[in-house]
Amino acid sequence: MTTPKVEKLLINYKTLEKFKYFKEYGNQELSMLEDLQNNIVENDSESPFYGIYFGNNLVARMSLYTVKAKYDKFFEPPQDYLELWKLEVLPAYRDQGYGKALVDFAKSYNLPIKTNPRINSHSFWEKMGFQKAKYDMERDLGNNPLIWMPEGVTEKEV
Amino acid sequence: MTTPKVEKLLINYKTLEKFKYFKEYGNQELSMLEDLQNNIVENDSESPFYGIYFGNNLVARMSLYTVKAKYDKFFEPPQDYLELWKLEVLPAYRDQGYGKALVDFAKSYNLPIKTNPRINSHSFWEKMGFQKAKYDMERDLGNNPLIWMPEGVTEKEV
Repeated sequence: MTTPKVEKLLINYKTLEKFKYFKEYGNQELSMLEDLQNNIVENDSESPFYGIYFGNNLVARMSLYTVKAKYDKFFEPPQDYLELWKLEVLPAYRDQGYGKALVDFAKSYNLPIKTNPRINSHSFWEKMGFQKAKYDMERDLGNNPLIWMPEGVTEKEV
Repeated sequence: MTTPKVEKLLINYKTLEKFKYFKEYGNQELSMLEDLQNNIVENDSESPFYGIYFGNNLVARMSLYTVKAKYDKFFEPPQDYLELWKLEVLPAYRDQGYGKALVDFAKSYNLPIKTNPRINSHSFWEKMGFQKAKYDMERDLGNNPLIWMPEGVTEKEV
């Protein structure tokens, strides 16, 4: 099997239509749609989303955002890290390596990664080498963050 | 019907056992258990949880934490606000006002409230007078925050 190609997704009506097939469609997508309709963002401007197409179908996606070192509360030494969210593979395309391809793409930046996954996806994240961050109430509140660290990075003591 | 009594929950093995009946049992509870086992926290120390008992059963709970004004990115003027999470009523006790009793308790502090609810609970939060915060990617990432404001408070422009 060839490695699936991960693409940066552009904000346009076509992409936003495809997003509706994903369960975690929420405020973020609605706000992108509004910004497009009100000409606050231009058609085809960059989004924080990356995805994998199978033919014409967007079958997997995730969002990535670089959090600056000065806001880092997770890693030692404090550094820029990636926040990863809305990783999702459409049901018919699961267990075919699309989720892993997205995570590998994120890892290729060689920055630590933090995600706050949905319930029931922990075995996937474990396979991807992610570990539970030690819980810190003021930082995590209702979240259950998972982290991944490249060599030379450790978890910050809480 | 009398108004259900909302109590601050103490960290002890009995409470932590009761927490296991709630779906959103996660890192926070595991960390409380560990801290208790390792004598890092004393038995019966205060937790961020509030709950409602029906007889001996804990039937509803939520967590509350006061975020300081200097970290406020949601309200105008910037001020202390309450973060509310893990609001949950056990299935057999739903639609009997327990959820509302907890939210009313939180509102009684007369501070703005922010929560980041699970999918499918939006009609409940709407009934409680909560509204969607305007999405701000750097602030919200994968979250879909809802907010409630007492009189005199408005949403911060993003």
